[in-house]
Amino acid sequence: MSQTTATPRPSLNGVDTPSLLATINLVGQQPDLAKFQFRASNRWQLGTHSRSTVESFSGAGGEQRHARTLEFDADHPAVLVGGDNGATPVEFLLVALASCLTAGIGNIAAARGVKLTSVESRLEGDIDLRGIFGLPTDGRNGYERIRVSVTIAGDAPPEKLRAIVEQSRARSAVYDVLTNGVPVDISVDVSS
Amino acid sequence: MSQTTATPRPSLNGVDTPSLLATINLVGQQPDLAKFQFRASNRWQLGTHSRSTVESFSGAGGEQRHARTLEFDADHPAVLVGGDNGATPVEFLLVALASCLTAGIGNIAAARGVKLTSVESRLEGDIDLRGIFGLPTDGRNGYERIRVSVTIAGDAPPEKLRAIVEQSRARSAVYDVLTNGVPVDISVDVSS
Repeated sequence: MSQTTATPRPSLNGVDTPSLLATINLVGQQPDLAKFQFRASNRWQLGTHSRSTVESFSGAGGEQRHARTLEFDADHPAVLVGGDNGATPVEFLLVALASCLTAGIGNIAAARGVKLTSVESRLEGDIDLRGIFGLPTDGRNGYERIRVSVTIAGDAPPEKLRAIVEQSRARSAVYDVLTNGVPVDISVDVSS
Repeated sequence: MSQTTATPRPSLNGVDTPSLLATINLVGQQPDLAKFQFRASNRWQLGTHSRSTVESFSGAGGEQRHARTLEFDADHPAVLVGGDNGATPVEFLLVALASCLTAGIGNIAAARGVKLTSVESRLEGDIDLRGIFGLPTDGRNGYERIRVSVTIAGDAPPEKLRAIVEQSRARSAVYDVLTNGVPVDISVDVSS
């Protein structure tokens, strides 16, 4: 985004563009400010139903806290003998991807001086559940493929709007994790 | 889970174990029933704030619908010049992972005849946000590493409880996607 930091931009699309660019410049000078740790905790409710809590994180040089504590119920649907008390775990992956791409589009459009009218997306993930049921399969446990269809409108030519989506994809933290994978360490304590 | 399907199990941990095992046996005979498609749609609100909707999916041979329409607000936090109107996109990845592991633990414990008392987990994801800001970095855009700490209690020896967590990890759809990655296709339409 170095080409945009040279050009002062007014706030746009609900993005405080001057503050965003000042933050980017500050982080460029003090890279430690960019080190974040996000967290969630989860508590089993009953069956396949659990509740996750998202509250605090660290970054920008200190401990941070969301304006409010966020809770997310997850469950398997009835057709999978769950209680359907929330979204399925794999649906949260789609929510993560959609929201990351859209947030990036909002920021990048503002930094490029493009006023957005609307951004919508539809996501589909194909999965063969034989894997999670422990049945023989030549496939995998998770999604085989995810498709994202973005529809964008704003005061710029189609190619400029497409380039904003492409830049959001190229910068997206969730897209990176989903397409490239990430090491996950699991430790287990048994309590009495 | 073939070793457990041979042993009738009563319902346990809120899991209708007989129905679960019958479902697994049915899917074993009709693999097409295991083909699911999960979906989400997302609409930009303002700035980095978006709202995702989860409602329908297909699987078990037909179109399915959650008991209620689920909505998830996502945003960047204030310290990243966002409106903090929801969880950050990368936090939804942690919710997905936590809830997938916990749902698996509930099902597997029931199938193995283990009564659970509690299952809790804490997740942390380390990320250097220079990537999403387009600043020079030798790292990546997404999480560098995710750590999961599970605490489990139930009426079985510690090793049996640990084995349930391990089996949940081995079967987890979200763990598979996060650690191995998944192809993501993005298409863009420009509307006027």
